[in-house]
Amino acid sequence: MAQIKPRTLSGFMELLPARQVQFDRMVETLRKTYSLYGFTPLDTPAIEASEVLLAKGGGETEKQIYRFTKGDSDLSLRFDLTVPLAKYVALHTGDLTFPFRRFQIGKVYRGERAQRGRFREFYQADIDVIGDGSLDIINEAEIPSIIYKTFTALGLKRFQIRVNNRKVLNGLFEILGLKEQAGDVMRTIDKLEKIGPEKVKELLVNEFSVPAATADQLLELLSTADPMAALNALKGQNELFDRGVEELSTVVNYMSAFGVPAENYQVDLTIARGLDYYTGTVYETAMLDHPEIGSICSGGRYDNLAEYYTNKQLPGVGISIGLTRLFFVLEDQKYLNDDLLTAPADVLVLPMTQDLSPAIALATQLREAGIRTQLYTENKKFKQKIGYADKLGIPYVIFLGEDEVKEGKAAVKDMATGEQLTQSVEEAIDRIRAGLAQRAEGTPIRDPHN
Amino acid sequence: MAQIKPRTLSGFMELLPARQVQFDRMVETLRKTYSLYGFTPLDTPAIEASEVLLAKGGGETEKQIYRFTKGDSDLSLRFDLTVPLAKYVALHTGDLTFPFRRFQIGKVYRGERAQRGRFREFYQADIDVIGDGSLDIINEAEIPSIIYKTFTALGLKRFQIRVNNRKVLNGLFEILGLKEQAGDVMRTIDKLEKIGPEKVKELLVNEFSVPAATADQLLELLSTADPMAALNALKGQNELFDRGVEELSTVVNYMSAFGVPAENYQVDLTIARGLDYYTGTVYETAMLDHPEIGSICSGGRYDNLAEYYTNKQLPGVGISIGLTRLFFVLEDQKYLNDDLLTAPADVLVLPMTQDLSPAIALATQLREAGIRTQLYTENKKFKQKIGYADKLGIPYVIFLGEDEVKEGKAAVKDMATGEQLTQSVEEAIDRIRAGLAQRAEGTPIRDPHN
Repeated sequence: MAQIKPRTLSGFMELLPARQVQFDRMVETLRKTYSLYGFTPLDTPAIEASEVLLAKGGGETEKQIYRFTKGDSDLSLRFDLTVPLAKYVALHTGDLTFPFRRFQIGKVYRGERAQRGRFREFYQADIDVIGDGSLDIINEAEIPSIIYKTFTALGLKRFQIRVNNRKVLNGLFEILGLKEQAGDVMRTIDKLEKIGPEKVKELLVNEFSVPAATADQLLELLSTADPMAALNALKGQNELFDRGVEELSTVVNYMSAFGVPAENYQVDLTIARGLDYYTGTVYETAMLDHPEIGSICSGGRYDNLAEYYTNKQLPGVGISIGLTRLFFVLEDQKYLNDDLLTAPADVLVLPMTQDLSPAIALATQLREAGIRTQLYTENKKFKQKIGYADKLGIPYVIFLGEDEVKEGKAAVKDMATGEQLTQSVEEAIDRIRAGLAQRAEGTPIRDPHN
Repeated sequence: MAQIKPRTLSGFMELLPARQVQFDRMVETLRKTYSLYGFTPLDTPAIEASEVLLAKGGGETEKQIYRFTKGDSDLSLRFDLTVPLAKYVALHTGDLTFPFRRFQIGKVYRGERAQRGRFREFYQADIDVIGDGSLDIINEAEIPSIIYKTFTALGLKRFQIRVNNRKVLNGLFEILGLKEQAGDVMRTIDKLEKIGPEKVKELLVNEFSVPAATADQLLELLSTADPMAALNALKGQNELFDRGVEELSTVVNYMSAFGVPAENYQVDLTIARGLDYYTGTVYETAMLDHPEIGSICSGGRYDNLAEYYTNKQLPGVGISIGLTRLFFVLEDQKYLNDDLLTAPADVLVLPMTQDLSPAIALATQLREAGIRTQLYTENKKFKQKIGYADKLGIPYVIFLGEDEVKEGKAAVKDMATGEQLTQSVEEAIDRIRAGLAQRAEGTPIRDPHN
């Protein structure tokens, strides 16, 4: 038969079984954490009408999109979970209760140039709180605590949540007379970490006609050790700015009440998060030992989620984790906790009798006790059977011969210690459960720098 | 601003929040059940190279496929989870351990004509056991017990697993001298339930030149009350047939050892499951009160999973549940258990103090106890706040005023009974946990016919 060489497209993550278990464990941790904060799970189609998905239009997004026709329909694969959320909320407004808190973990598609660590199909894990007309500032203060809790639950330690406020930035540009160049200035200061203050000043002055003294004032403010004090000192000149400082103060003040330790957050006036969407608090999250990776969880407050679909004002605040890329980085940098079980089963039952009924009954009993059990009946040599459990990391093997069946017992081997005991099924269940509980201690990630 | 009317494509399921929780609960039940039997979770890309996905080629599939180009690449959305599994196993053979037991629950795409209850994007929930060169018959006997366990865990009662064997059918056609017309005959007897035996005989005789006596013999066999006895009576004439009867006997004999009650399975000689893929045991599953729905879980044994990609012989056995369609039917026929909680949170905390720190601390304590908690801080009237919990079905509301804060207590209202108690946080946690445990009793489905 003519055969096709099997391959997986580049830019598409496809994991081997043990890694997939680790990925799923991260997803499960996110689901659980988001649920603890009262977010409801949502799922929307991966395909939408292009007209709907591209209502906002323009930009990089449109170039990267997977767009095609089927019959008469112009269709596109979603490139994020925010636009489908906007559509969902606009479409189902009457059926939703506001504030509407939802999480969504799903695949999105971007036909980016393929390169190491960049994916064309990737999971995003988003949460958003959508208000109907208005939304209390407390929501903006709670979000960083969810980010903190999420990464802590995953097992990451050396990370920092960076917080800023778009009203502060926009007000500041008005105070400094830079309103016209606001976009250019923001894009330039965004490069601060990468190219340094001198180069930024040069660009501001030479490219965007910022007076040298103003550039100095701006750069000093951005690098101050106590940004809140510096901002408070500038109050009273611009209404928008004052409101922004007020909001930022509230967010910062409540953050410790929400349990975020001081070393895990920082006000960072260089953070802007794009130009035209966010209107209040904005967030980025850095891995302290891997600044090169950029933000691993970003988002902010916006005033109009769905203005392209409805006149209803739907302000909200949300964050997004690029899960596939994060997983890639964690694997690459040896953050994944390989001590946690990745085996498909907890127990491998090896029947040594002609009649399999006793082995089947044992497997059923174990499963009823919540123990993941595989019955191994392939016609292989004993060594190969044991090797199967070994290769897959299955922690217990049970041998069931005529003698054990007669006595109503089973020979249970702990594959890690090699200890083999002949036990009643009840004893075996207790022993296996205790062993599994011990093996389950720990988080999906183990921060190697802590 | 020019606006686009928000809409979701027809044939794409998009659920409201409470329904989504019910859907996710079903998925969770499947994941858990599959895991208990030692299957490892897998995830593969939704997009594959068309050349790879269509290696087998032809048929209805190709017409329904979502196929498009991006740059130079000819791409397609997967239309099932079997072809991606074949590719995965062929591609990663060296990294896998056989028998390879995997489950996969994911979206697939078919551009079918849109009609009520038919979906273009839908979830399939598959399990497969893949052997390396050979695979023991016990795997074929275990599968029906997994089907049984899965639907029982979901809460379905009135269902029947129908089992047949392709070697029996093919051998039978050889015995009856119908080898040439085997495909046509199979397709015709597949209509037995729909059009009845007389019409089937007419088609067999007139369309496919089956002698009338042979048609009678065949129809009698298919309608016999004791198919195993009838098959055994025919043994000794054809090797393939005899092997098939042997396999079918083994599967049936072990089924009760595996714990499948007699009323939940039946040998049904009319089941064929397509023409060229399955080679041994085949399965279908019927909802007894909704025969019009067809099979809700089907599959079987095959000899060559990946013959289009590799010379390696990879026999296997697997089943698939069309989850989206099943969910649609269950909702439509009122099988969903609406007594189980669908609220996004277990507790809504309503702060009555200016300073929110005590309410935040309380919410944190509750979350640390595993209780899903939402802090409600919107500036609304008291009635609207209570109405929020009510509309979402949040089972407990906690009021936190100055008095409670001073006493270190909280006013906890059970929204179902109306009972409001002022309790310590520990007491509240115990009460809420007990209430939630009670509310969690029950299965995702409640069979209305039992």
